Amino acid sequence: MTRKSEDFSEWYNEVIEKAELSDKRYPIKGMNVWMPYGWALMKNIDTLIRTYCDATNHQEVNFPLLIPETEFQKEAQHIKGFGDQVYWVTKGGANVLDISLLLRPTSETAMYPMFALWVRSHADLPLKTYQIVNTFRYETKQTRPFIRVREIHFFEAHTCHVDEADAEKQVKEDLEIMAKLGRDLCLPYVLHKRPEWDKFAGAHYSIGVDAFMESGRTLQVATVHHYRDNFSKAYGITYEDDKGEHKNVHQTTYGISERLLGAVVGAHGDDAGLVLPPGIAPIQVVVIPILAKGKQEEVVKVCDEVASKLKTAGVRTHIDSRDLRPGNKFFHWELRGVPLRVELGMKDIEKGIVTVARRDTGKRVEVPSGEVVISIERLLEEVSANLMTKAWKVLDSAIVACNDIANARNVKDKILRLGWCGEKSCAEEIEKQTETSILGIPLDCTDKLTQCAICGGRVKEIVDSAKTY
Amino acid sequence: MTRKSEDFSEWYNEVIEKAELSDKRYPIKGMNVWMPYGWALMKNIDTLIRTYCDATNHQEVNFPLLIPETEFQKEAQHIKGFGDQVYWVTKGGANVLDISLLLRPTSETAMYPMFALWVRSHADLPLKTYQIVNTFRYETKQTRPFIRVREIHFFEAHTCHVDEADAEKQVKEDLEIMAKLGRDLCLPYVLHKRPEWDKFAGAHYSIGVDAFMESGRTLQVATVHHYRDNFSKAYGITYEDDKGEHKNVHQTTYGISERLLGAVVGAHGDDAGLVLPPGIAPIQVVVIPILAKGKQEEVVKVCDEVASKLKTAGVRTHIDSRDLRPGNKFFHWELRGVPLRVELGMKDIEKGIVTVARRDTGKRVEVPSGEVVISIERLLEEVSANLMTKAWKVLDSAIVACNDIANARNVKDKILRLGWCGEKSCAEEIEKQTETSILGIPLDCTDKLTQCAICGGRVKEIVDSAKTY
Repeated sequence: MTRKSEDFSEWYNEVIEKAELSDKRYPIKGMNVWMPYGWALMKNIDTLIRTYCDATNHQEVNFPLLIPETEFQKEAQHIKGFGDQVYWVTKGGANVLDISLLLRPTSETAMYPMFALWVRSHADLPLKTYQIVNTFRYETKQTRPFIRVREIHFFEAHTCHVDEADAEKQVKEDLEIMAKLGRDLCLPYVLHKRPEWDKFAGAHYSIGVDAFMESGRTLQVATVHHYRDNFSKAYGITYEDDKGEHKNVHQTTYGISERLLGAVVGAHGDDAGLVLPPGIAPIQVVVIPILAKGKQEEVVKVCDEVASKLKTAGVRTHIDSRDLRPGNKFFHWELRGVPLRVELGMKDIEKGIVTVARRDTGKRVEVPSGEVVISIERLLEEVSANLMTKAWKVLDSAIVACNDIANARNVKDKILRLGWCGEKSCAEEIEKQTETSILGIPLDCTDKLTQCAICGGRVKEIVDSAKTY
Repeated sequence: MTRKSEDFSEWYNEVIEKAELSDKRYPIKGMNVWMPYGWALMKNIDTLIRTYCDATNHQEVNFPLLIPETEFQKEAQHIKGFGDQVYWVTKGGANVLDISLLLRPTSETAMYPMFALWVRSHADLPLKTYQIVNTFRYETKQTRPFIRVREIHFFEAHTCHVDEADAEKQVKEDLEIMAKLGRDLCLPYVLHKRPEWDKFAGAHYSIGVDAFMESGRTLQVATVHHYRDNFSKAYGITYEDDKGEHKNVHQTTYGISERLLGAVVGAHGDDAGLVLPPGIAPIQVVVIPILAKGKQEEVVKVCDEVASKLKTAGVRTHIDSRDLRPGNKFFHWELRGVPLRVELGMKDIEKGIVTVARRDTGKRVEVPSGEVVISIERLLEEVSANLMTKAWKVLDSAIVACNDIANARNVKDKILRLGWCGEKSCAEEIEKQTETSILGIPLDCTDKLTQCAICGGRVKEIVDSAKTY
């Protein structure tokens, strides 16, 4: 396999193929097949998202895929942003449809005509819904598994509120959910308030959740948007307040795409393959029987016992009892990123121990067989903590504060942090001179920068700029 | 609400609307919005299907929605069966696509080009996959929620086997899974081997799973197909057997649509609304505090305790603490078909009991508060058993064996069971004279019929015929 440090892009593609996450040989470019292991991973991420959304009183719905052209055109900014990127259904059987239908690139224009029917009074608010669905973009750029695809597995939350302040609270809640997800996935990120010219089509403001890949590029894995009443005016989503007045709702959306999985692959994987965070690994522990001649039954029995104890404790455990050499099995599960491997042979049984190998560090530890459950649980936590620490190190050292543009021009494949006077022309000059894109204003930033990197003027905002996917 | 016995169709539509399962006001006819309660129900059915498929070593995958026209056309019978019913994507952005893409009506033509890549040797077989996805039919007939829609929530299993016999075993396994699902949903059905002229496009044979609705019509909720090597020849799915010979795989498919939920609504509901089988009810027990003046805190506390005990025991429980009269709450949850209602006020607490009302019979029982969990668990089982018994009664009395066609002509809104000589012309005559459609040969049939209902000739097969959805 290609080394991660030598050619990140090639390594990324190979690891996805060899670990059997996704098959890109499907006869439409950028529409890939989710293979069982990749789909199991994605479903585990979905389950976490559902858990956090349900706990915050969101309700899961499922809207139709197709949107009539007439509904799509109601919000002018929105269609400007998406018009070139949609797939159009123009025929049913041999009939040309009277009104063309588009495949949702995102569901504002599908949901909001219905929200206009659902919301009547302040008692119906907040309305907090979400769905996990397939969305579509007619991409003309080069596609890449999970990162740039034409059919996107997508989570989208859509909420309606009595006013701007209540919608603002929702944005905060969304960021808290993101923080929890980040911990589960051991994935650090930077929150950026996107610049005006790069906010979501139709939004009041947009916050991007940017992970960093060792290729030197950032990857937007999620976005949170505050719409104010921009869409509710276009779609007539109004409510009667407690004084009997009719008002437009304020809205937010929260989108998380399969890119999150791409970020996990990129952040933790190594030259031997995937390294999965225990929080989403379909198999957290694989048990490998080390069979010597003669006492095979005894070994199989003890392996079954260990696996059964772990399963009872809620640890996702798999026994690999295939007729293969242990070395081949080690290789197979390392490639697939299983966090812990239990090796169990007669020697271990005689010593009353179990040997556990960590995928993240490669280290083996011996644990007393009577303490196998608690030891494994502790090791899984240690793996998570270590993955998080390592990923933070990568991100921290990727952010480089530069006081002037000359300095910034010499920094390659990092996130540049710069002072900015607030003028668009200076931002464009930053992008041009450093061959990066402005990510926006980092929300948690302690760096002090004294001058605009371009004009030397007073710093209005600190901005980050980087190459992006 | 319309009475079920007076106008089944109208009642069916109303109950779905009022119980908030699905909203059909979406601006494309036959593409309905899954509302939270309906989606929760459907997800519970999906979870059962996943459990049974995973337990039988099926692997869940997720294939792209869009299929290139060129792949779709490879199996001649198949395209003949579906050609008029597909939605076509012809444009991406402003570009006309070189090859039109269709929205999957079912996924044979998406999956089988990939199966041809995945299957190499007999060691890869059986290949047992499934997915739960949205599928599409350009319906020209009148649409009806869950029963006839244009975007269909669909389970489809696709398997490859070394030979016809192994594929035959798969068909048996599929029917066992159906039997389990039927028990969970308290839903009886008749298995029919479809007549030659009504089998799935491209199949060797098809088995339909037909539920009966009190409207007098049957509803096909699932199908199992044996394809032999019809598709594998068209798509080149071959394997090397242990002698080094290349052979075509034999295939099966198993489809279950959201119609299953339509059947549940139709089979169990009554004039007060839905009646949900405990196996899939999103809420199995609703706890209603009966608050008198003064001692409200005490009542709320005991309600919380009861709900907490039930949840710990794995019973899906909800406390309705809205500021509404108990009567309104009863009505609300009856409409939504919650199997058991716990009423809890100071009188109950003083007596040391809990009052439980059954949705299926309307009966109230008092159970000692110390035995609330075991009592509720037992009652949920009794509700399931009762729903099953009642539904079987309806189905049993709907099947009417008729020895001749004159007799059959007088039987309305039932499943006619008739002797058949095997000639297509006699089958057509049955359909014409009784205004029904031949469902096929019932797989479990003990009825004896001595002559073909039309020609009086020797009975080759027993057939069922009915009005269908």
